[in-house]
Amino acid sequence: MSYCNVNGQCVAENDARIPVQDRGFRFGDGVFETIALHQGVPYQYDWHMERLAHGLRALKIPFDTALLQPHCRELVQRNGMRDGILRIQVTRGIGSQGYLPDPSHRLAGASFVIETQPAAPVSPIPVLLWQSSLRKISTSALPVQTKLCQGVNSTLARMEAVENKCFEALLLNERQQLCETSSGNLFWVTGGTVYTPSLSCGLLNGSTRASLMRLAQVTEAETTMEALMSAESVFITNVAWLALPVCGLNPAGKTWGNHETCHRLRQLLMMDRDAYSMSHRSEW
Amino acid sequence: MSYCNVNGQCVAENDARIPVQDRGFRFGDGVFETIALHQGVPYQYDWHMERLAHGLRALKIPFDTALLQPHCRELVQRNGMRDGILRIQVTRGIGSQGYLPDPSHRLAGASFVIETQPAAPVSPIPVLLWQSSLRKISTSALPVQTKLCQGVNSTLARMEAVENKCFEALLLNERQQLCETSSGNLFWVTGGTVYTPSLSCGLLNGSTRASLMRLAQVTEAETTMEALMSAESVFITNVAWLALPVCGLNPAGKTWGNHETCHRLRQLLMMDRDAYSMSHRSEW
Repeated sequence: MSYCNVNGQCVAENDARIPVQDRGFRFGDGVFETIALHQGVPYQYDWHMERLAHGLRALKIPFDTALLQPHCRELVQRNGMRDGILRIQVTRGIGSQGYLPDPSHRLAGASFVIETQPAAPVSPIPVLLWQSSLRKISTSALPVQTKLCQGVNSTLARMEAVENKCFEALLLNERQQLCETSSGNLFWVTGGTVYTPSLSCGLLNGSTRASLMRLAQVTEAETTMEALMSAESVFITNVAWLALPVCGLNPAGKTWGNHETCHRLRQLLMMDRDAYSMSHRSEW
Repeated sequence: MSYCNVNGQCVAENDARIPVQDRGFRFGDGVFETIALHQGVPYQYDWHMERLAHGLRALKIPFDTALLQPHCRELVQRNGMRDGILRIQVTRGIGSQGYLPDPSHRLAGASFVIETQPAAPVSPIPVLLWQSSLRKISTSALPVQTKLCQGVNSTLARMEAVENKCFEALLLNERQQLCETSSGNLFWVTGGTVYTPSLSCGLLNGSTRASLMRLAQVTEAETTMEALMSAESVFITNVAWLALPVCGLNPAGKTWGNHETCHRLRQLLMMDRDAYSMSHRSEW
């Protein structure tokens, strides 16, 4: 049997429930993190906690992220989870029925749920992207750099891609600039240089994107579809895929080959993850 | 004690829970309706069911809204709720951990929660608006005409308004056009004509807005802040407020008086609600 942690209580996964009055359920009023578990160690845990805290501040949800680690450690050990995903969600908790949170929500406090999820390693087989009919939600409307529990834009984009026999959706922002995919960040290679859209394009500040920018030379760019169309190769990143080569974009019918850079950077990410697990084992 | 209905089961409000795996909790992946209960009758129930069905189609959530009415009727009677709010939420249900719903979610099916909530009548005392620093989420990113469980934009806008000692937030769309408030629709009067932003401005298709357009002459407009600045009077609508006069906009320091049109339309709405309750009593 697998367990979850709900507000500090370890419960069987099948019994893990939250009140229907939780604003996470009513309005998606919260933030979450999906952290790669590698050899029993959550990769870049501190980085994820910083992004979570940033998201909570953006949503004005008072919560001390430091109290999560003991619960995460207990859950990883109890579930015997070596490799997979550690998912942490923090919501504003039980509050008013309308959009304006009760003043009392600061007393009732935020809710949190911690889960481990099995995740098979994703083989780096080249995938197809679908150019979404949707635009990414603008930074003028939401603090999109953090993982908000506002997943309908990503969900609809990914469903549309799969209906069109593609693996993943490519989203532009409202200024028609390259932004991200529905579940990952976008990279391309031109003249040997690796590019990725800059955060100012209104994309999720992805953890794998951040790791890659630490491990390799990556140039941030604010640019349009033309940059992708003239690229030598394209790949996408997230905690589950690491780096995944892209072989084409539909409905344009554009194709890319030459996935060497993607495979090289994927190796770098795997080595970094191994090193992280080694050096942080004692904490977990 | 008050009850909720969770997936067809009537349970005590304090015991009403949903699994943490529900995509409503994970991603706000659902839609909801708030319906005015008046004399034990949900006002404009059929209209709300049409908007709910429209939202479910937009989110590609297969669900037959016709199955809700017997549960709503049972709950209203059981809670003895005469005047208040009937809230119905339908989510995609338990699904995958990522944005892409499991193919199996069509088998597990959507989840729904029905609640009644007490709501005191809102006195038509003129209120202050705060011009939000946020823009409304664009129709290019989400089907915003329906009540998506994606409430962070509205929540942050309303919190900002209250922090600035205003009742409610005024949001422009990404084209700087008048759009709506965080919890209601916007109206203004110029030269005796009543105006409201047209649906093409990317606003919620509000039920009170729709009722007003049926009961009175209202002109839809795509326009900017200047129209509001030169208006004779301004008011806002939703199911709880009906029509609420606006006395000013901050930080601009603009003020409006002359709330006669608002009060007259409010009377029309109340009469229509009375007539609706009378003629639909037998169904409830």
